Amino acid sequence: MLPNSNKKTVLDPFGASEVADYERLYKEFGIDPFEPLLSKVPNPSFYMRRGIIFGHRDFNRILNAIHKHEEFAVLSGIKPTGEFHLGTLMTAKEIIYFQQQGAQTFYCIADIEAYEDNNVSFEKSERIAVDNVADLLALGLDPKRTYIYRQSEEIRVKDLAIIFGRPVTLATMKAIYGERHIGLYLSALIQAGDILLPQLEDFGGPKPTIIPVGVDQDPHIRFTRDLAQKFHRKYKFILPSSTYHKLMKGLDGSPKMSKRQMNYFTLHDSPETIAKRISNSFTGGRATVKEQQELGGIPEICPVYEICLFHFIKDNDKITRIYHDCKTGRLLCGEHKKQTIERVLEFVKEHRRKKKKFMDKAQEILQLKYEREKTKK
Amino acid sequence: MLPNSNKKTVLDPFGASEVADYERLYKEFGIDPFEPLLSKVPNPSFYMRRGIIFGHRDFNRILNAIHKHEEFAVLSGIKPTGEFHLGTLMTAKEIIYFQQQGAQTFYCIADIEAYEDNNVSFEKSERIAVDNVADLLALGLDPKRTYIYRQSEEIRVKDLAIIFGRPVTLATMKAIYGERHIGLYLSALIQAGDILLPQLEDFGGPKPTIIPVGVDQDPHIRFTRDLAQKFHRKYKFILPSSTYHKLMKGLDGSPKMSKRQMNYFTLHDSPETIAKRISNSFTGGRATVKEQQELGGIPEICPVYEICLFHFIKDNDKITRIYHDCKTGRLLCGEHKKQTIERVLEFVKEHRRKKKKFMDKAQEILQLKYEREKTKK
Repeated sequence: MLPNSNKKTVLDPFGASEVADYERLYKEFGIDPFEPLLSKVPNPSFYMRRGIIFGHRDFNRILNAIHKHEEFAVLSGIKPTGEFHLGTLMTAKEIIYFQQQGAQTFYCIADIEAYEDNNVSFEKSERIAVDNVADLLALGLDPKRTYIYRQSEEIRVKDLAIIFGRPVTLATMKAIYGERHIGLYLSALIQAGDILLPQLEDFGGPKPTIIPVGVDQDPHIRFTRDLAQKFHRKYKFILPSSTYHKLMKGLDGSPKMSKRQMNYFTLHDSPETIAKRISNSFTGGRATVKEQQELGGIPEICPVYEICLFHFIKDNDKITRIYHDCKTGRLLCGEHKKQTIERVLEFVKEHRRKKKKFMDKAQEILQLKYEREKTKK
Repeated sequence: MLPNSNKKTVLDPFGASEVADYERLYKEFGIDPFEPLLSKVPNPSFYMRRGIIFGHRDFNRILNAIHKHEEFAVLSGIKPTGEFHLGTLMTAKEIIYFQQQGAQTFYCIADIEAYEDNNVSFEKSERIAVDNVADLLALGLDPKRTYIYRQSEEIRVKDLAIIFGRPVTLATMKAIYGERHIGLYLSALIQAGDILLPQLEDFGGPKPTIIPVGVDQDPHIRFTRDLAQKFHRKYKFILPSSTYHKLMKGLDGSPKMSKRQMNYFTLHDSPETIAKRISNSFTGGRATVKEQQELGGIPEICPVYEICLFHFIKDNDKITRIYHDCKTGRLLCGEHKKQTIERVLEFVKEHRRKKKKFMDKAQEILQLKYEREKTKK
């Protein structure tokens, strides 16, 4: 493992994607740095080791549960508005990691959010959800040990949202989410219901719960922790814990992947599209080959480097070599893009092969869920 | 039937409770006067004949359905925060009237509103609801032809609320309900779901629906009609119709009965309490007996007169006689209170006798509902 503490120096191959002002997150929002905990994690994940998970809230509680072999839960989810991409892939890997560490696992298809925020109909998001679940299974999620559900079908989540609405002032909502339409506020309450669902009696009652998310999701976490406190007397909720990963850049170099800007690819784009997107990507390269050979590239701002760092080069020596070869001008963007395209397409091909076998199972899981809802409250 | 068109003259025994500025309601809010329709109603209700129902929206649609023997629905409800009083009694009578005119009947126990608005727990409102339903049955509602439900148990209503949330801006909510907490906005969406529930496919699809309410509930009606229009393409909703009754004054002479001011009695207060409340009521009487004998009383501002007018004196000649006896100083407040107490206690005694027999049935209806929910979506 390479050192991760010298984030400020240039020679940190894991320091890419420094999009957030971390000091501010730590100080103003009370997110704690993850690094001091790293040595206490029995079997740290790839993202923890690489410093891609950089912050947390109350992760000690989860560590305790792991150490003492006590019950804990992991919950995350996806907004079913489109196919898996490298961003959603991160959350998927995180939830699978915690499942493998023994967590009771919950995966939420946030179809109410997809509707309220993106106006995706429930009919459409249902089809997308089947696809998303097949991705998850192909990535290694164990469906036998996971509660996968759609928000729109989970009465308990909707009921929690209704219950949570009472003490929430308009001022609170505006402070967190800005002036938004009522449906969006409602979907925020629903999401709080998701996060606290694992602690209901139906699932064995209060327990430590880890929510692995991108740092942009922290407002939801704070909002939910506040509600957990407000309703402690009724439900005995334990404040949910969270880990925060860095966000992947868009291929245009902008700080975030965005559907509107089409600055990313999905795992189900054609090989040609993927290759083309990466080929056309912004990089940390210089204006001319000569200049780059002299000055070296800037991997810290390069989305192509980030793709390798976050997903496709597991070996630390190898990524370090690439980093240095770029910095010293030995590895040029054209060559690195070519290598990266190969790596991505290889993964994508294998992933799709696996996924194909899980499509029926995914359909069955979402329908089973539906049938289950029909026969019980 | 006595004439009801001369509202502005003093000599209108049915003109009491002129609390609202009706001209303004007609002009600014688009409520139509009910009086011009009266002659077209085949079997007008007591409240229609007395001008207590004074306004409507789209009531023609209901009249058409009645005339053509086409399907239509009536929906109203109660917020289960306490026992029946003379105000809730009005709505109950109205819904029973429309049921007798052939309407498919819906009665909503607004327990989510009771929670969001009044912080009444669902456990508590469940107990209150059983009591309220027994009142309804005692008053003559036919349970076999009525769908009685609690909001908290009616998934379709909650789902409609979620669907309706998307196009509703914060500005709209503030304009209608003011700056309120999120739970209250949510309960407004739920109420819109209630009002449009009868038009879902599960209940036979779109149909004219009459919502008989107090005029203070018009904002809900406007809000819901707007949503019905917005979601017309998806659900083919027909804009719901409404009738508006005047509000009963509080016994302290204030324009509305209010729990906080304890200015009313319930049907389940002890005879002593009821007698005491009426005895202590504000009236339209004068400072001294002598003065009243000379000048006469003012029934237009008298809650005791209103109790008789709205509920306990069905005979038009009789109420007209009381009105004139008051105006001319022949009937003094003490005597009139005594008569009124007798009338109220007689009704209450008989009502409770009937109600007792319906308590088990009421329990069964609310539990049946619960069981039904468990076995279907």
